[in-house]
Amino acid sequence: MNTLTKRSRSGGRAANTKKRRGAPFKQSHWRLPLNCDRPIEPLGEDGVQQIHNGAMQVLEEIGIEFLNSEAIALFSSAGCKVSGNNVKMDRNWVLEMLQKAPAEFTITPRNPKNEITVGGKHILFGNVSSPPNYYDLDLGTKVPGNREQCANLIKLSQYFNCIHFLGGYPVEPVDIHSSVRHLDVIFDKLRFSDKVCHAYSLGKERVEDAMDMIKIAAGLSEDNFQQKPHMYTNINSTSPLKHDYPMIDGCLRMVRRGQAVIVTPFTLAGAMAPVTISGAVTLSIAEALAAIALFQYVAPGCKCVLGTFTSNVDMKSGSPAFGTPEYMRATQITGQMGRFYKLPIRSSGVCTANVPDGQSVWETSNSLWAAVQSGTNMVYHAAGWLEGGLIACPEKFIMDCEVLQMIQRYMEADVFNSSEEAIALDAIREVGPNGHYFGIEHTQARYESAFYQPFLSDWKNFEAWEKNGARWTAKRANSLFKNILNDFAIPEMPQDRMEELSEFVSKRKAEGGAPTDY
Amino acid sequence: MNTLTKRSRSGGRAANTKKRRGAPFKQSHWRLPLNCDRPIEPLGEDGVQQIHNGAMQVLEEIGIEFLNSEAIALFSSAGCKVSGNNVKMDRNWVLEMLQKAPAEFTITPRNPKNEITVGGKHILFGNVSSPPNYYDLDLGTKVPGNREQCANLIKLSQYFNCIHFLGGYPVEPVDIHSSVRHLDVIFDKLRFSDKVCHAYSLGKERVEDAMDMIKIAAGLSEDNFQQKPHMYTNINSTSPLKHDYPMIDGCLRMVRRGQAVIVTPFTLAGAMAPVTISGAVTLSIAEALAAIALFQYVAPGCKCVLGTFTSNVDMKSGSPAFGTPEYMRATQITGQMGRFYKLPIRSSGVCTANVPDGQSVWETSNSLWAAVQSGTNMVYHAAGWLEGGLIACPEKFIMDCEVLQMIQRYMEADVFNSSEEAIALDAIREVGPNGHYFGIEHTQARYESAFYQPFLSDWKNFEAWEKNGARWTAKRANSLFKNILNDFAIPEMPQDRMEELSEFVSKRKAEGGAPTDY
Repeated sequence: MNTLTKRSRSGGRAANTKKRRGAPFKQSHWRLPLNCDRPIEPLGEDGVQQIHNGAMQVLEEIGIEFLNSEAIALFSSAGCKVSGNNVKMDRNWVLEMLQKAPAEFTITPRNPKNEITVGGKHILFGNVSSPPNYYDLDLGTKVPGNREQCANLIKLSQYFNCIHFLGGYPVEPVDIHSSVRHLDVIFDKLRFSDKVCHAYSLGKERVEDAMDMIKIAAGLSEDNFQQKPHMYTNINSTSPLKHDYPMIDGCLRMVRRGQAVIVTPFTLAGAMAPVTISGAVTLSIAEALAAIALFQYVAPGCKCVLGTFTSNVDMKSGSPAFGTPEYMRATQITGQMGRFYKLPIRSSGVCTANVPDGQSVWETSNSLWAAVQSGTNMVYHAAGWLEGGLIACPEKFIMDCEVLQMIQRYMEADVFNSSEEAIALDAIREVGPNGHYFGIEHTQARYESAFYQPFLSDWKNFEAWEKNGARWTAKRANSLFKNILNDFAIPEMPQDRMEELSEFVSKRKAEGGAPTDY
Repeated sequence: MNTLTKRSRSGGRAANTKKRRGAPFKQSHWRLPLNCDRPIEPLGEDGVQQIHNGAMQVLEEIGIEFLNSEAIALFSSAGCKVSGNNVKMDRNWVLEMLQKAPAEFTITPRNPKNEITVGGKHILFGNVSSPPNYYDLDLGTKVPGNREQCANLIKLSQYFNCIHFLGGYPVEPVDIHSSVRHLDVIFDKLRFSDKVCHAYSLGKERVEDAMDMIKIAAGLSEDNFQQKPHMYTNINSTSPLKHDYPMIDGCLRMVRRGQAVIVTPFTLAGAMAPVTISGAVTLSIAEALAAIALFQYVAPGCKCVLGTFTSNVDMKSGSPAFGTPEYMRATQITGQMGRFYKLPIRSSGVCTANVPDGQSVWETSNSLWAAVQSGTNMVYHAAGWLEGGLIACPEKFIMDCEVLQMIQRYMEADVFNSSEEAIALDAIREVGPNGHYFGIEHTQARYESAFYQPFLSDWKNFEAWEKNGARWTAKRANSLFKNILNDFAIPEMPQDRMEELSEFVSKRKAEGGAPTDY
């Protein structure tokens, strides 16, 4: 394992911002973008009240099932109406709990320079998470994921400055036994990346192992670890109206140790949720708030994010569709609800397409612009997702990163600076009606940083592009993928921490890892 | 020529809305979408004032060159300061002229059912215009445009309900001599389409011929023709700070006969305009308003649209780049200025990419969403554009139409209806925690129209998609292209009009068409 640390090079992220010798290309710098656009709000204040009222009626009159005895006991002690697994909660209690949740917080990974701020005007992007399958242009077909592919996608997530945090496994490495998979992948995440890390809520052992490993990698005492979030989990409800055991269990463990949780119902309009978008969002809000209220009851002030994953089915086949107009509106409406409850928002970069083609781009573009328009704070699955989340794809990852870089550039205030110098009357006067602006001082002083510079888009004319191999976007991304892996600089980790981490993994493997009865 | 009219079938547009026997697919219905989203406004009120003030200073202090003696005489008679070709105009006079321009108007083509409303909340889409070259997947490379390709793209523009108006030639048919090209292409436009038609401002003969032909096709007297717009032109300034002879001449002829004009400066930041986006927009606004003020002086209340075509150069090569973050902000800012001057806005669907690949889609998506966000009323080049406007491509056309259909669906209020029925508490209660929503009454009553149905996006899973030929988006679009042409229903035109039109073309060809010294 030590050979790995020896391979570490100085530089890492900072060095990636300019083209090093051997670096594949110049990418945009790391930043925590602020989304200064006024959100698009399809609903008026009345509409927000109606969805709020609907969600509160769900919680008060219909109730949510919690298949978790600890949660049931907690709700009971909080005075909620419990009947079997069904919990009905008064809206005043829910709102009282929600008020304890912070509107903004930080998550600090092992490299504190990569700390992120969740909430407010911030918009952050994470990689694709949890597809069971993998596709790349060299394979040319869909295969079950493995550890090498997973590690390669972790490296992409680390490499690109436009990716702020790591999601779940970027592809499920089914070649590793599920009892120890979490140990190997979190180890790979921590050695190949120093950005904010995620852990699945899949049982006590996996959750506690993940927290312990992140603590070791960051060199933190338990006290320091608990002081503020250093990681997060994301859970889904089992729509309609249900939370399962391990998801709630994992969140309870995390919030008790000061870590952040995202609650993301998957309410597919027409299947697990009403066919109407407002209905599907209402159900989603009710399911999410029920869990967040519980976490605030257990750990007042704990860091929670309201997630949305409301889309619609294809009414021809009943299968989910993503990046649709209905998906966009659901995301925007959830943004409105998040601001109403003063909770940070998570949405996603998604598509239905099976390969990194034109369709995959318009579907993903729709979802990414909906994230921007909704005031989303964390954009999950923002790079690398295909086939409704069943495939992870490195070419798509790299294509998405070009779009993410553009979105981040779009948010920089100098693009729309309207100062006297920017309005440039003197330059207009100087050039007059017969010149051009290439050579003048006003241009020369600004041209290096005036415009977004792509790394994957080919801006050559057709003839030059054709001469250069006539490569379509996905092919170019395929080349870059290999260049990035060849050039990848492993972020540094102190030798002692790496050894401790390695020993932890060995020990836990020897103990059998985690039970696999989920 | 009469054989063509005999080939006409009943139905046309209306029939296209459902899948006929032999119809290639079901597309969305014709509608004039209303953009209910609040526009994205990067500038505050101060910024708008600063750009306004900058543009007014350009007009007052620097002046615009008009290479058109009639225009110079008109400005002079209006009391503007004329010196050679340079015209300086007082801001009060400019604003007085602008106040005469309507904020909203209609254009009525030969089929009055295809009338469009320009301005207000309307957003309309037109096809790619004026590329000299053509690319399709069967050719596999770029070739100069010809009449057949041009006619095929006109047919696509007619076929798709999401295309509301025709732009300039969808590809320049360089196999037709330029003296008579306008006669043949406008003839093709009028026989293959009954939507709103455009004419180039390229000299007296072409402009007058176009107006006469549109009048004949619609069966209008000169009085009726002049009563309201039945067509339009689009002109560009010769940035910086210049309007050429034929563009202004054409517009003067059009506004005097009651037709609509779009004035679209092409201010490429860093080349023909300041490197700063606010500066490039300021220049664009000044150039556009100078011409619009002239037209309002000549024909008070004439129908004018403020166009924007501000993008940036690639600072590596100096060539134009489209669909960039800077392009998006320029479009949004111009939208703000249009609302400030109470003028309808035109922007574009654009990309730099050479083929209908992923890059072409993200660049075009960026520009189309910027059109939506800016409150644009007419989106030029919205389908079929490649290589910065140098290539027209049918596969790209069809891909763009899928995105346009989604944008139009996105704007339908039922997507974000928040009525009691939409919030669906009863359905949530009915299904409870253990069922699904497929079979219930609330779903059954709505599912046919609840969600956008794509015609090109493939929502099958990977295995079914692979079994079905594993075709990427552009390949699928290529098949649809052929199906649409095979199935194309020529819109009806009364026999006498068709004959008169045909005779007009013959006569004007015999007379030699138009001079070709431009």
